[in-house]
Amino acid sequence: MQEQSNIKFTMRAFEKAQDRDLGFGEKVARESRERLLNRDGSFNVERTGLKLFALLNPYHFLLTMSWTRFITATLLIYFLSNLVFGFFYGILGEGTLIDTSSTPTENLFLRGFFFSVQTFATIGYGTIHPVGIITNLLVTIESYYSMIMTALVTGIVFARFARPTAKILFSDHALIAPYQDKTAFMMRLVNSRNNQMIEVEAKIMFSRLVDENGKKNRRFDMLELERDQVVFLPLSWTLVHPIDENSPMFGMTEEDFHNSDAEFAILLSGMDETYAQVVHTRTSYKPNEIKHGYKFTSIYNEVESGEKISIDVRKLSKIEKA
Amino acid sequence: MQEQSNIKFTMRAFEKAQDRDLGFGEKVARESRERLLNRDGSFNVERTGLKLFALLNPYHFLLTMSWTRFITATLLIYFLSNLVFGFFYGILGEGTLIDTSSTPTENLFLRGFFFSVQTFATIGYGTIHPVGIITNLLVTIESYYSMIMTALVTGIVFARFARPTAKILFSDHALIAPYQDKTAFMMRLVNSRNNQMIEVEAKIMFSRLVDENGKKNRRFDMLELERDQVVFLPLSWTLVHPIDENSPMFGMTEEDFHNSDAEFAILLSGMDETYAQVVHTRTSYKPNEIKHGYKFTSIYNEVESGEKISIDVRKLSKIEKA
Amino acid sequence: MQEQSNIKFTMRAFEKAQDRDLGFGEKVARESRERLLNRDGSFNVERTGLKLFALLNPYHFLLTMSWTRFITATLLIYFLSNLVFGFFYGILGEGTLIDTSSTPTENLFLRGFFFSVQTFATIGYGTIHPVGIITNLLVTIESYYSMIMTALVTGIVFARFARPTAKILFSDHALIAPYQDKTAFMMRLVNSRNNQMIEVEAKIMFSRLVDENGKKNRRFDMLELERDQVVFLPLSWTLVHPIDENSPMFGMTEEDFHNSDAEFAILLSGMDETYAQVVHTRTSYKPNEIKHGYKFTSIYNEVESGEKISIDVRKLSKIEKA
Amino acid sequence: MQEQSNIKFTMRAFEKAQDRDLGFGEKVARESRERLLNRDGSFNVERTGLKLFALLNPYHFLLTMSWTRFITATLLIYFLSNLVFGFFYGILGEGTLIDTSSTPTENLFLRGFFFSVQTFATIGYGTIHPVGIITNLLVTIESYYSMIMTALVTGIVFARFARPTAKILFSDHALIAPYQDKTAFMMRLVNSRNNQMIEVEAKIMFSRLVDENGKKNRRFDMLELERDQVVFLPLSWTLVHPIDENSPMFGMTEEDFHNSDAEFAILLSGMDETYAQVVHTRTSYKPNEIKHGYKFTSIYNEVESGEKISIDVRKLSKIEKA
Repeated sequence: MQEQSNIKFTMRAFEKAQDRDLGFGEKVARESRERLLNRDGSFNVERTGLKLFALLNPYHFLLTMSWTRFITATLLIYFLSNLVFGFFYGILGEGTLIDTSSTPTENLFLRGFFFSVQTFATIGYGTIHPVGIITNLLVTIESYYSMIMTALVTGIVFARFARPTAKILFSDHALIAPYQDKTAFMMRLVNSRNNQMIEVEAKIMFSRLVDENGKKNRRFDMLELERDQVVFLPLSWTLVHPIDENSPMFGMTEEDFHNSDAEFAILLSGMDETYAQVVHTRTSYKPNEIKHGYKFTSIYNEVESGEKISIDVRKLSKIEKA
Repeated sequence: MQEQSNIKFTMRAFEKAQDRDLGFGEKVARESRERLLNRDGSFNVERTGLKLFALLNPYHFLLTMSWTRFITATLLIYFLSNLVFGFFYGILGEGTLIDTSSTPTENLFLRGFFFSVQTFATIGYGTIHPVGIITNLLVTIESYYSMIMTALVTGIVFARFARPTAKILFSDHALIAPYQDKTAFMMRLVNSRNNQMIEVEAKIMFSRLVDENGKKNRRFDMLELERDQVVFLPLSWTLVHPIDENSPMFGMTEEDFHNSDAEFAILLSGMDETYAQVVHTRTSYKPNEIKHGYKFTSIYNEVESGEKISIDVRKLSKIEKA
Repeated sequence: MQEQSNIKFTMRAFEKAQDRDLGFGEKVARESRERLLNRDGSFNVERTGLKLFALLNPYHFLLTMSWTRFITATLLIYFLSNLVFGFFYGILGEGTLIDTSSTPTENLFLRGFFFSVQTFATIGYGTIHPVGIITNLLVTIESYYSMIMTALVTGIVFARFARPTAKILFSDHALIAPYQDKTAFMMRLVNSRNNQMIEVEAKIMFSRLVDENGKKNRRFDMLELERDQVVFLPLSWTLVHPIDENSPMFGMTEEDFHNSDAEFAILLSGMDETYAQVVHTRTSYKPNEIKHGYKFTSIYNEVESGEKISIDVRKLSKIEKA
Repeated sequence: MQEQSNIKFTMRAFEKAQDRDLGFGEKVARESRERLLNRDGSFNVERTGLKLFALLNPYHFLLTMSWTRFITATLLIYFLSNLVFGFFYGILGEGTLIDTSSTPTENLFLRGFFFSVQTFATIGYGTIHPVGIITNLLVTIESYYSMIMTALVTGIVFARFARPTAKILFSDHALIAPYQDKTAFMMRLVNSRNNQMIEVEAKIMFSRLVDENGKKNRRFDMLELERDQVVFLPLSWTLVHPIDENSPMFGMTEEDFHNSDAEFAILLSGMDETYAQVVHTRTSYKPNEIKHGYKFTSIYNEVESGEKISIDVRKLSKIEKA
């Protein structure tokens, strides 16, 4: 399992990262008062002039677009392809495309379109059939074209499913509240998939603007976690950072978080047992997503001793006054 | 190969885990007298409110359901799809779906169903063929639908096979018996696949309830193994934990195991050479699955010197009085 | 890249393995005078009672069988499937399967077979077409069956190609010859694929029978390599183990190797850039595959300075008197 | 994530590699004045006698050839296959292949070709249909053949997309210019894909010919980087090697680089989040691709504070006098 390397690596990376950017570049480190990481884990960053290059990676695009968009896109391509081929069958004119049905489709282009569908989908009822060399060659081309297109769609549909992606749910809010004898920063997460994630590893990166000889710089610090890894994740997991004197959050007030444009980036990685591959997921909390003086309501369902332990995922974000 | 990181990681995780949960949550650590891990390696834990989320992961579901269920499911979908389309072809009524065969199917819905099958499967004999725009458009839709469905089934059928999964067989019982000069806890395993697993690594986690200032807590300990890794696994492998003074099992009687609701979780990981991917597998033994005073019968077949070594997998769980 | 973990792991495994089996079991360590590893890297070991279990892993079987066998197998299944369905179409008798062609196929079973082919392959010329409910239902079943079968074959054909496998060529013989100031054990290898392998790591495991208080035991030792890893493998690589006082081979004569039933197992692993996955490969040399007093002929082609460096893979096993 | 192992590994490999080849073989280390690595990361090395072996790896070939070549190749195979089958249908002569259309295709071979297309693509209009056993058997064969071919194309088309490959853009030139208080060697890169690469790790290997007791040897050294890893790569990244007394480049003039046939190999690896797999990429700079006294123009777009940070990938290679 690669988590551990991952941990060490990330650790080192972050140690080296103190007072420095994490790949966001000086610019970010300096100016930005924008959220760096969106709730969904994507980066709040833009790369222009990429359109052209992005096209070099249609697969990623087809892989990550929403299902509705994907279905629409393929459906569109399917429809257009048949329109185009249908048009050509149509212009080849009467006699090249015979409709032997009792009530043939008179409109040549309409006939061409339906014939194209029957050809593209390799149905070939035969009531509409090609006559003459040109039409038959067109059929040859379309059948090749449809073979490649079907191959593409098959591959992509499959890949969309096959791609391992962690579906971790994070609590809507992070909490700062008394915890045991001290105060702690807490957030809760659960695996929303009915599969197992093993050797799960978590990090919390705390970034905020600090005054350094006059000008504001963005500082990045890792927050010590009471527990930063679990071997299994069958239930929920509450990440706890005790705010003691060693914590960079020590002594900061709710207002300070706003003024310093604080941001908490959560980095999670683990192995998806279904795919036997390591997956990563991220999220981030801004000051307005932090509740002070609240704690998480127990996520466990009441069970008779003897019953199996049981949690209710819907209670993930339930909180109560501490 | 990632085993070694894995080992270190798991090791560390477990060291840190002493007296603490492994991701099972305080709750488990405290109360549970239930088995945490089932024989098949799944967790004996429930997550309610997940149904909705689980649906977000149909792939995992389709991937892990039994073959019989999978075939039934797809067959059902195939049948229903054709019923629905057949129904629509039917209601479009006489004249939109011509059956030119000598003895046409009179029932329009039946005809519609058969036509749908011939369309969905892209056979298109043509004896039954569409007439008119609406029917032809319906054909267009069905052919697109069938393309997507076929893509899905193709992808999933493939993925079900492609997913690397260790098929390790564990002996039905764990044994506690004299071993060399001392007593040992033993269990035996074999790779039931005709492929190779390399750099295989094993851990045994011993968990039980202990009295701690009054209330019962669940303790987790790793058991030292005489040998915790092998480079190859062409034959069988017997895991041996010598019960000496350093062992948390030291001095415990058969009764103690029952009273402390003991559980032995076996964690195995190795690289599947067929897929060049790391796979994990687990099992667990409860006190009633432990035999005292027994040892494993040799799994080797008698061979003439000069013949290749040979074991009989069926003897895996064969035991005899020590 | 996982090599390095791999190295460390294997290293440790082997250190621990001194005087012990590597997963071959006591039995091997003791008695066997058989080669443990075949030239092709497979294990010279048998597991009986596995047939049944092996069936649980048809994918691995379909994945690793030769192409000729695979084509034959699928072709057979294709032919048999059509025979079976054809037979049923046949017994349904005249009137359920109409052949409208000018010269229809009289033999009902032959007609059934051809019809089945046209249905299984979803061609459906329509000259032969089903009549009546039972035949049409049979068509429904066959079309579903063919969909699943096609999905399987597609998936497996693909997977056979997709599976990353190192195609490393090892020299036919290992050599023992003077090297620089001392003697060395040498063998040469080359990547026979036109893709890149990176971070390649090699180990040589020397095993032989030794007398230990009376009875013969098999000992395993790792041989120190002058260089045990390369970052790239664009050319050939000669593994060199200097036979100095630290070498377990020190002082052994050609005869000793035969008497002690010596075996040299070569373990190679590296990352296949085409698949971005780690692959492993193995081979082994027995005393009769070792040439004494020979060295490898240069594998390089003569090139004008200014030309790119070039080797001739066919010279891999070329040797000459030292 | 495997980067970190990777780092350590590569590190060690390179430490060991000082003054030695990296898998290029003595030959290279000695003579070559040729570039070892091409700009596109491929090796400037030839392996003859491989043609035969390469054929053993058609998948890699089909996987890495350009799309245009791939389409041409498959199209050709598709066309030829139909020509061959069409030819056989043709020679079977009149009466074995009936064309029932009003204006049948007279030329038997042409008819055979079109029929073959309709069969291979499983269209089967039926106007042209087989008669007699031999023709029908030929259909059986072709339909099997087409099934396998389609499976292949589907698999390969998919795999071409699915294969994780880093699409990192490197600046056209490397720069040597004053940097902060000293001089530095710099080059810039950006991820040209609209996906995320995480835990990215970079190395620069400096190789050049040095005089060692008379004869010229090629030396390999790793260049210390101001920062050799980033956790994310959402923007651009400038690799900076400060040329101080510890640098092997220290004191070398522009001319020295040419005379010593210097080469800078950039090795980059990171995890592609879309595929959750580690990818590697390489490039190299020769003296004529190094600009002295230039620095990179800022790649950032001007943004209003409050807007998200934004870079313009097209400015990657933009440089200006230092």
